[in-house]
Amino acid sequence: MNFPLPQKFRAAGLHAGVKKDGVKDMALFVSEVPAQAAGVFTTNQVCAAPVKIDRDHLANGKGQAIIVNSGNANACTGPQGLEDARIMARLTADALELPIEDTFVCSTGSIGKQLPMDVIGSGIQALVAELGPDGIDAADGILTSDSKRKVARLEFEGGASMVAVAKGAGMIQPNMATMLCFVLTDLQVDNAQAALSAATDQSFNRITVDGDMSTNDTVLLLANGASGVRLDPVLFQQALDKLLLDLALQIVHDGEGISKVVTLKISGAHSDADADTIARAIANSLLVKTAWAGTYPSWGRVMDAIGYAGAPIEEEKIIIDFNDTRKVTGGLDTGADTAAITAADEFTISVQLGLGSGSAILYTTDCTEAYVRFNMH
Amino acid sequence: MNFPLPQKFRAAGLHAGVKKDGVKDMALFVSEVPAQAAGVFTTNQVCAAPVKIDRDHLANGKGQAIIVNSGNANACTGPQGLEDARIMARLTADALELPIEDTFVCSTGSIGKQLPMDVIGSGIQALVAELGPDGIDAADGILTSDSKRKVARLEFEGGASMVAVAKGAGMIQPNMATMLCFVLTDLQVDNAQAALSAATDQSFNRITVDGDMSTNDTVLLLANGASGVRLDPVLFQQALDKLLLDLALQIVHDGEGISKVVTLKISGAHSDADADTIARAIANSLLVKTAWAGTYPSWGRVMDAIGYAGAPIEEEKIIIDFNDTRKVTGGLDTGADTAAITAADEFTISVQLGLGSGSAILYTTDCTEAYVRFNMH
Repeated sequence: MNFPLPQKFRAAGLHAGVKKDGVKDMALFVSEVPAQAAGVFTTNQVCAAPVKIDRDHLANGKGQAIIVNSGNANACTGPQGLEDARIMARLTADALELPIEDTFVCSTGSIGKQLPMDVIGSGIQALVAELGPDGIDAADGILTSDSKRKVARLEFEGGASMVAVAKGAGMIQPNMATMLCFVLTDLQVDNAQAALSAATDQSFNRITVDGDMSTNDTVLLLANGASGVRLDPVLFQQALDKLLLDLALQIVHDGEGISKVVTLKISGAHSDADADTIARAIANSLLVKTAWAGTYPSWGRVMDAIGYAGAPIEEEKIIIDFNDTRKVTGGLDTGADTAAITAADEFTISVQLGLGSGSAILYTTDCTEAYVRFNMH
Repeated sequence: MNFPLPQKFRAAGLHAGVKKDGVKDMALFVSEVPAQAAGVFTTNQVCAAPVKIDRDHLANGKGQAIIVNSGNANACTGPQGLEDARIMARLTADALELPIEDTFVCSTGSIGKQLPMDVIGSGIQALVAELGPDGIDAADGILTSDSKRKVARLEFEGGASMVAVAKGAGMIQPNMATMLCFVLTDLQVDNAQAALSAATDQSFNRITVDGDMSTNDTVLLLANGASGVRLDPVLFQQALDKLLLDLALQIVHDGEGISKVVTLKISGAHSDADADTIARAIANSLLVKTAWAGTYPSWGRVMDAIGYAGAPIEEEKIIIDFNDTRKVTGGLDTGADTAAITAADEFTISVQLGLGSGSAILYTTDCTEAYVRFNMH
């Protein structure tokens, strides 16, 4: 597979030795010219060292390089971890002859181990030597428990393009996930930060696999304007939204050990926040998720989760559809057979609360024996 | 096994036919003389019909009979469910020649099916005919997915006693659980409601198996004073606390498919509420729970959950002990080997936040492949 990068972007990915199994574990993304930068980070109070560095480096709104390792999260690593993340950025900046402030650093993998800095250092030198116009090796270098690479690409008139790569399969819950996402574009962009925040809200913040929010979540955007093409801001937002939602759904579909993807649509709440609260209660209910994994008719467990979510509801007004089949009306079973629907790999559960105009959508998964097995060790 | 009831109490349990497999599915508890009554109920907004009835019947603070069926929760059953619960109470009151207001009704089992009222009606008649001074059949009649009966008993000077029976194994999260608990005593009691609420707070509201709060949770206390013994209120509270904590721990140990029971002790939070928030984030983290099921060193996932719980923390102040072994200090791994501790059936994780004097304790379980298998069908 080819994955051509936008103009004046280069990337590389390789096995440096952070992981023991010989698979790619480092990646580097570089713009040859100064670029606008934007970022969205985990809100977890226990956040990894590189997240702290990147928040600082983002202050000037510019950036040119992103250095990434997988296999080690550099989280819960204290002052040494912070120093190592800073060295990782410094080595990259020096090799590329960039200011350190224009270099972002990301780590993903196990929590609580110090980075192997000798491996990281030699990996950075090798990555710089291998930089090229295709992004596929770099897309592979950021993966951890992912079963497949996650890439998306859009082209625009005038030869411009926007690409994004992501990783993530578990510890997936807004805001955001054990996920990294890097967006590179040669479009000329004005409000990169506002656009990225809005696009993240409707994509990575709308997915949950297991309800656990990671220490390392990072979305970074570099826009170098090298194509000379400037989109209408509304069209740019639409393109960015589309790209990130595509990747977010790739992450859900690749959830660790999952067998089904479920789209939850909540409407008729007093507010969007209430609808979101109810969507998350359903999506993160272990009993609902295990029911989806099997053959148990789940509407009663969905009702139960709606009731304890914490947002006001009126039981006798609730309508629940499985795809287009009405399963609950007035809070009561219609008797409709939904077994064929819930046996499929994907389905939609729509809940109408009948109270107001608040709504939310959330993409989630079942919880399988394979998920448990995967995360036991 | 014998399970003698306090003076002037009678009980019965039998297979009426709500369940298909021939096991006991109905129970009746009766005081021969008027008794003080107290109750604590689910806070789920989707609550079962019998809960609505019992809240009404508790208004006068008195009660003499509790009629229970297992196998069907009579939840999400609408006006017919409410009418059936009322009929179930009425049939019991008439057979015992009691006012309906002194009769409580409880149901537990599957959500969303109407009660088989012919079976319930004949079951009530048979139960009344079989009433006796031993509670063991009644204790069995309230069980659903429980693998064992749950009973506890305390004796006092002067021939008084207090017994309690409970059911619950899944959908277990405060406030409270898919759990029923009935406490019967011949002690003379003054503040039954306050004592029961306090005892529930430190027992059934301190356990979580899967984070799901049920539609039917009910704790009822009947105190008929027949022994003539009056305890000091402080001693009575201690006795009630002990009895309910005993049963709460029996429920956790019987969690569906679980293999380990974990006690979480959080201290040093700004407030008890903050400590509780953090305890629940850890206890309900799917990644923490699956780590406990296996061999994965879980301290990093515990740190992650502490970070996203929502209460303020300072990462570099966190201390985590596994039993008496310090695993994390200053937010960092001490390198201590905790594998033998987490391989045991039970262990304690103590988290010191170093911020204030708020604390909380929570009893929880791992999440196993067997749990998923159990709840898939």
